[in-house]
Amino acid sequence: MTRDWNGSAISGVTAGVTGMERRAARRILETRGDLRMRAVLWNGEEVRISDEPALARVVFRDRGVIPYLALHPEVGLGDAYASGRLEIEGDLVTALKLFFGHPEQRGLLRRARDAWRLWDRRSHSLRRARYNIHRHYDLGNEFYALWLDERMAYTCAYFPTPSSSLEEAQLAKMEHVSRKVWLRPGDRVVEAGCGWGALALHMARHHGVTVTAYNISSEQVRYARELARREGLADRVEFREDDYRNVRGRYDAFVSVGMLEHVGDENYAELGRVIDRSLEPHGRGLIHSIGRIQRRPMDPWIDKHIFPGSYSPKLEEMVGILSPHDLAVIDVENLRMHYEKTLTHWLERFEKNAAAIERRFDARFVRIFRLYLAGAIASFHVGNLQLWQVVFQRTRSNDLPWNRARLYVPKG
Amino acid sequence: MTRDWNGSAISGVTAGVTGMERRAARRILETRGDLRMRAVLWNGEEVRISDEPALARVVFRDRGVIPYLALHPEVGLGDAYASGRLEIEGDLVTALKLFFGHPEQRGLLRRARDAWRLWDRRSHSLRRARYNIHRHYDLGNEFYALWLDERMAYTCAYFPTPSSSLEEAQLAKMEHVSRKVWLRPGDRVVEAGCGWGALALHMARHHGVTVTAYNISSEQVRYARELARREGLADRVEFREDDYRNVRGRYDAFVSVGMLEHVGDENYAELGRVIDRSLEPHGRGLIHSIGRIQRRPMDPWIDKHIFPGSYSPKLEEMVGILSPHDLAVIDVENLRMHYEKTLTHWLERFEKNAAAIERRFDARFVRIFRLYLAGAIASFHVGNLQLWQVVFQRTRSNDLPWNRARLYVPKG
Repeated sequence: MTRDWNGSAISGVTAGVTGMERRAARRILETRGDLRMRAVLWNGEEVRISDEPALARVVFRDRGVIPYLALHPEVGLGDAYASGRLEIEGDLVTALKLFFGHPEQRGLLRRARDAWRLWDRRSHSLRRARYNIHRHYDLGNEFYALWLDERMAYTCAYFPTPSSSLEEAQLAKMEHVSRKVWLRPGDRVVEAGCGWGALALHMARHHGVTVTAYNISSEQVRYARELARREGLADRVEFREDDYRNVRGRYDAFVSVGMLEHVGDENYAELGRVIDRSLEPHGRGLIHSIGRIQRRPMDPWIDKHIFPGSYSPKLEEMVGILSPHDLAVIDVENLRMHYEKTLTHWLERFEKNAAAIERRFDARFVRIFRLYLAGAIASFHVGNLQLWQVVFQRTRSNDLPWNRARLYVPKG
Repeated sequence: MTRDWNGSAISGVTAGVTGMERRAARRILETRGDLRMRAVLWNGEEVRISDEPALARVVFRDRGVIPYLALHPEVGLGDAYASGRLEIEGDLVTALKLFFGHPEQRGLLRRARDAWRLWDRRSHSLRRARYNIHRHYDLGNEFYALWLDERMAYTCAYFPTPSSSLEEAQLAKMEHVSRKVWLRPGDRVVEAGCGWGALALHMARHHGVTVTAYNISSEQVRYARELARREGLADRVEFREDDYRNVRGRYDAFVSVGMLEHVGDENYAELGRVIDRSLEPHGRGLIHSIGRIQRRPMDPWIDKHIFPGSYSPKLEEMVGILSPHDLAVIDVENLRMHYEKTLTHWLERFEKNAAAIERRFDARFVRIFRLYLAGAIASFHVGNLQLWQVVFQRTRSNDLPWNRARLYVPKG
């Protein structure tokens, strides 16, 4: 029986749909979807696997989509959505929460595929790393300005309350990070992967430190330098267009917010060595990164369209960067729900500017970015992704705060 | 040249000391000691390896000590101290900080020995675990009452300020743990390894929860049950004399404070399964344990005299208990300095009651316990040991506090 979106029966226009196609659509709902999803075929016919009220409908716009999905099990759904051959009726984020909430397949095939993908990755040479970063972060500062906050912070914010604004939350994040590494006036700070420079400038402005910030996105560095000049901080914040592996000098604090995802786990040992040689004996550090509970390769669609060469580590792997150098973890905080909230703000702003973005790029670009943002919201919501801030210092150093209460003192 | 404790030269009473013995004493200072230590031989002769002011002197009371140390490189120093054949002049904790601050030997021999010791351990059968715990925790409740706080909390306290009393700090620790697992009235809590019951009773009294607490020390369980009865909490706190592996039922919160050290890492996977099957979908948990940055076996002297079968995990290993069950770490705090402070209070109370303890046991027992407490202070001080509180919950659960600010609200 066919039903429309509200559940009313539609008289049978099932022509042009074979039984095999119908079974394939049902199979997609069963293996990757949810009881509360429906599939809608190109002739309007609805396929369901339960009588629970529908929360979302997946619309196959043409009959070619089904074999396409079978041929491309990894990126097919995303690519069909990007091209508009597959549509989601109902809220996209809700639909993706249903997709991602599906018990993950732990079968042999899945595990073998994951293992292969973890092995079969390009190494992050300096050149490849630069290409990976360029691909995403050099899409144009004007584009990012359309949906990030006014400071262009492109990492998980820290919402004082769930209803705080994105601007407040990005400011609170920078303050939270500064307090976590216990900045004191005169400290020399190195930042690995500084985005558009917001955190570096915040630390210099509000904590009286000097910052050397590294980034291999030329667009971001250009923007950050201009900002430092305009804000009169150019003498205290130096932006270097260079790889974290080329960090030189000794510092009182090391911070890295949202870079680890691009490092590639084959370089974690080197990152550990970089931190070790950069940090004074009394130095503190913080790594802020998206992570996962289980070791899994990056989603292939995200790897293809959004973040080539990215990887979300387990907490064990993050800690493992530090242990070989006797760097002791003193604080870990999981901000998964704050990233869901951050992304929700981004998607809302993105949608408000979708027409402008489509003019700048094209409809496919808009759909790719929409799927990426909505998918990330869903992933943090269902706990497929975590966000960990890990604070550390040398185990031999006793120059550490007595407790964490200072993080929660209202800013005077 | 021989000098007395104040550095004045003494005319040479070097008779009875061979050149080889003198070289051996010097070698001990060089390989395991510090430039600011002196050795004093049985004839009063002082051996030094630098002209820096002395902070402590190791006194060899008879010539047999030196070959004894050579024959027992692992436990010799501690055993010679225990028997009184080796004495420390100056502050014992200071001397041990110098010993433990020595750059750890990473030579092939040391690593091979560590690897062997990690492999050559008795497994923690239910019987063996009971013996291990009995050995230490059943020394007599009256004995522990002589140097623990009034609540008999035998784990790292949480000092609101460095000058807080031990009583305040143990109370604050229980409150800190209760808030970390976000106790709400009516919650059912399971505690694995409950000591003398202080935390279980605190949670029931102050947070309106019911607690099922497991412990295999019969002395402790007897004491805890009596306390529950006296405080009118026997209907809300049940103390079970049983192994954590026999935990049954489903709970809203899992807490384990200071038990993991006795679990043995070959049982971490089983502990993970116990937690997984005990925790409701929305449940939270906390593991509080001594840890280390590097994988190392327990100090053999401590294993022999104090905590048979104990092991201090890396943070990676603690997290690894949780990951296989999709339990997400939401908070980690390192309280190493608080354990140094806690132990300092314990040692002070212990010394005040040393005469009474010697009457109850003997002089050797007092020296063993003194060395254990002083050594632990020194180990936490120099960062050889860490203390981690790890908070976790199921990654699929979004029933978690928005941030950690609630931990720092003064108790109303």
